[in-house]
Amino acid sequence: MSPTDRTTDEAAVEAANTAFYEAMETGDFERLSALWLDDGATPITCVHPGWPVLTGRGEVLRSYALIMANTDYIQFFLTDLRISLTGDTALVTCTENILSGGPAEDGAELGPLVGQLVVATNVFRRTPAGWKIWSHHASPVLGETTETSSPEDGSEPSEPPA
Amino acid sequence: MSPTDRTTDEAAVEAANTAFYEAMETGDFERLSALWLDDGATPITCVHPGWPVLTGRGEVLRSYALIMANTDYIQFFLTDLRISLTGDTALVTCTENILSGGPAEDGAELGPLVGQLVVATNVFRRTPAGWKIWSHHASPVLGETTETSSPEDGSEPSEPPA
Repeated sequence: MSPTDRTTDEAAVEAANTAFYEAMETGDFERLSALWLDDGATPITCVHPGWPVLTGRGEVLRSYALIMANTDYIQFFLTDLRISLTGDTALVTCTENILSGGPAEDGAELGPLVGQLVVATNVFRRTPAGWKIWSHHASPVLGETTETSSPEDGSEPSEPPA
Repeated sequence: MSPTDRTTDEAAVEAANTAFYEAMETGDFERLSALWLDDGATPITCVHPGWPVLTGRGEVLRSYALIMANTDYIQFFLTDLRISLTGDTALVTCTENILSGGPAEDGAELGPLVGQLVVATNVFRRTPAGWKIWSHHASPVLGETTETSSPEDGSEPSEPPA
């Protein structure tokens, strides 16, 4: 693979990753469904922050329908985006700085907005129809996240390993 | 790929996944290091529960050295293990039922044991030296985890989506 091919591939993967979050932001379930791998043979998997593993299109897409039904507003500000690509598979890691709001309870247009810091590993597979999402794993970043400390110094987060 | 090849591949992937957790249990840093992909071109990524993303062998392996230094006892009881394999890449999802303990503070042999429910997505890549870990993403399962409720019913966990 030439450097140019790699650059082209990475641009396509990043575009697919962006489309994934845009589909969430616009609540476009059909577009989101079309972005997930659907080759009839390879099960997709998904972990929302704090959730157990969901497997297969039925389970995964139902979870998104539920989430969209309960989310009036959601915006993802992606940072720290990195792509690791080899052959027909690409891994994207990024920080999802999320701002979201549910339905208002008092007749206002929107409920209170909530900020959340989440990290994601998204696995994409090359198909004839473009790069498709094979796996999404998102998890909350716990503890302090200041610039002056890092997990490596042993001071935080205090979660056990795995 | 014939069904027999697939079965053989899946067995090899499961063995690599088991070896990964055994290396953690035995605190065998050299063995653990050898299990991670090291092709000189494809960056590895790792997310420990509650942590931000770590990228590259230096950052990832330093985190394991730190974790091993602060863990006197750790045992993984893996459940819900599933393998999704296509071409030279395999995704393993599993629930890590973790029992761990740090150093004792009062001269006893071991500190108090802590149980933790974590889910993991492990991505493996086929290499001439066997299946190697490309990415590990582990996250805590929050909220209730009883048999009678599931994320799909909207009752829990209450975390926002991503």
